[in-house]
Amino acid sequence: MADFSPGLEGVVAAETAVSEVDGANGRLIYRGGYLIEDLVPVVSYEEVAYLLWHGELPNESQLDALSEEMAGARALNESARGSLTAIDAADDPMDILRTVVSAQGATKTLIKPSLEEAVALTAVFPTIVGATWRRRLRKEVMEPRSDLGHAANLLWMMNGEEPSAEKAHWLDTYLVLLADHGLNASTFAARVVASTGSDLTSCVVGAIAALKGPAHGGATLAARNMLDKIGSADNAERWLTEAHARHERFSGFGHRVYRTYDPRAKILREMAKTAAPELYTTAAKTEEVALRILHEAHPDRPNATNVDFWASVVLTGVGIPKELFTTIFATSRVAGWTAHVLESLSDLRLIRPASRWVGPQPGKKPLQLAKR
Amino acid sequence: MADFSPGLEGVVAAETAVSEVDGANGRLIYRGGYLIEDLVPVVSYEEVAYLLWHGELPNESQLDALSEEMAGARALNESARGSLTAIDAADDPMDILRTVVSAQGATKTLIKPSLEEAVALTAVFPTIVGATWRRRLRKEVMEPRSDLGHAANLLWMMNGEEPSAEKAHWLDTYLVLLADHGLNASTFAARVVASTGSDLTSCVVGAIAALKGPAHGGATLAARNMLDKIGSADNAERWLTEAHARHERFSGFGHRVYRTYDPRAKILREMAKTAAPELYTTAAKTEEVALRILHEAHPDRPNATNVDFWASVVLTGVGIPKELFTTIFATSRVAGWTAHVLESLSDLRLIRPASRWVGPQPGKKPLQLAKR
Repeated sequence: MADFSPGLEGVVAAETAVSEVDGANGRLIYRGGYLIEDLVPVVSYEEVAYLLWHGELPNESQLDALSEEMAGARALNESARGSLTAIDAADDPMDILRTVVSAQGATKTLIKPSLEEAVALTAVFPTIVGATWRRRLRKEVMEPRSDLGHAANLLWMMNGEEPSAEKAHWLDTYLVLLADHGLNASTFAARVVASTGSDLTSCVVGAIAALKGPAHGGATLAARNMLDKIGSADNAERWLTEAHARHERFSGFGHRVYRTYDPRAKILREMAKTAAPELYTTAAKTEEVALRILHEAHPDRPNATNVDFWASVVLTGVGIPKELFTTIFATSRVAGWTAHVLESLSDLRLIRPASRWVGPQPGKKPLQLAKR
Repeated sequence: MADFSPGLEGVVAAETAVSEVDGANGRLIYRGGYLIEDLVPVVSYEEVAYLLWHGELPNESQLDALSEEMAGARALNESARGSLTAIDAADDPMDILRTVVSAQGATKTLIKPSLEEAVALTAVFPTIVGATWRRRLRKEVMEPRSDLGHAANLLWMMNGEEPSAEKAHWLDTYLVLLADHGLNASTFAARVVASTGSDLTSCVVGAIAALKGPAHGGATLAARNMLDKIGSADNAERWLTEAHARHERFSGFGHRVYRTYDPRAKILREMAKTAAPELYTTAAKTEEVALRILHEAHPDRPNATNVDFWASVVLTGVGIPKELFTTIFATSRVAGWTAHVLESLSDLRLIRPASRWVGPQPGKKPLQLAKR
């Protein structure tokens, strides 16, 4: 039997053409062979979703058709609306998203994952996230606006007012950057669910469940919470030194795959300068000190800033409350999740790894039963 | 980089003492080192759940305490009740279960998986399954009864009448048999979700999502559907010969791990004789013919009957409608899912496998953008 690799590190669990994390060289390649830094300046989230689903960037009429299809699929159905209304508005927005997506995708018979459903699921995330926030504020839930793009409509549904072009652009860039990332834990969860022949909603719900964890999608909130505790650039040195002495992990640093600076973090860092100048100052100082402390403690380890660190600053600049960070991550990644599931259909095989038994062998222990 | 093993076959993804599928010898070992055939005649589902969670069978007072705790946790909370009421009663019961469990487990802050929550989640499944069935029939939803055991209460909630001791016993035996099974796909999904630091409800919801697929929990329904098509023992030879000629897979035969007769199938087969004598006759003939055809076609392959085949007969004898089969499977397996998650906490590491890039390398393709 094979050696045990905790966390399946280095174990190839899928062949994919959806995206590739070239950790050694700090490159993120999206479907079609595009480097993330080449795509980001020129494409919208809708275009990247199209790319991940189809393998090619859309031409003008294809993009128009997709935008129209997505705008037309933003409304919640009755099951989803009812579930949203029923659930405690103060609950974790990720729990609400998990529940309402599950309700929205409930069907009478088992349906094979399809591109159409991928589009519909992706389109509905901003509606759920926006409504979740409005309910939390005890404000009227907004209807989606079909004249706005994916990012702008999300901000409209959250805030009840049209966002500035700048804010919509920053959010759109974030959504492009986070749309896929190899075989991360939530994408892998989606592929495990898909491997049993389950439906696309089940795959996406499983992925939401996995994204929630602080070692995955929850890391953006953790990074922002750390920045909140640090408070100002002046306090970074003292706070980080003390935290390090307490053996606390620094949120927003380190990654399973990257051995260099995360290319997404680099782009978000640059954007943060204009999007959130004040928090940028604190974050830049925090990064400088954290990297120095980490390098001194572990000179052999790559301890570069990860995407969550700078994403937390940019999302703050966009005006996203930190309670929603993980749901916004999900709103981006759903394009990747669904693209991976659709890709996996061409050669579907049950994902069923082995385990190593570390319990006692049979026959060593008498059956001790409760008296009847 | 390691060789690619599709479906992670033979790849050790966890060390576990919860259960072991010894496929070569046709043994299923539950926590503590008990063979399934030694446990089944003497324990109830509550006792097996306790065993999977604690590593030891309960004594009398421990069993009483658990039974009381479970009976006290059967009610749905407001979020779950509202979601259940909102969702289309004709939707797939697995979709309803996925949604309502998600709502029931929604919390305000992230909670680390706990034994208490494992008990509560396990306790609530029969309530959801029972209510789902009553709503489907447009009948009054029953309140759970704290004076009944786990299996009997499930039948009470479905049928609105107390089951015979025999039926409750058959169902209880099924629940004991299916409560855990090594690193099957749904349990693995739960562990992937857990590995991100997510909450126990998210793990269980991810597992439900995976169990739904016909290559996993959905297989019991598929087996029963095949038996329905065959209709009678007389028709087995003709139907299976024709299906084989059409290259159809026989539902209920073959397993990733077992190389011999599944020990659970053996127990269920015996029980089926009394639980569903008529369907047993059809199933026994179907099994005989199917095994012969499969052996002739693939003499090298182990093609033994799997648990789903005989489970579909026993559940029919219990009076479970086939539309609920997968939810009953989930009702059993949730004990195992939660036991695995709790076990994984002691050495939690993000499950994040590698993938192999099969797309084009960057720089080969010019960026073709839609005109603006």
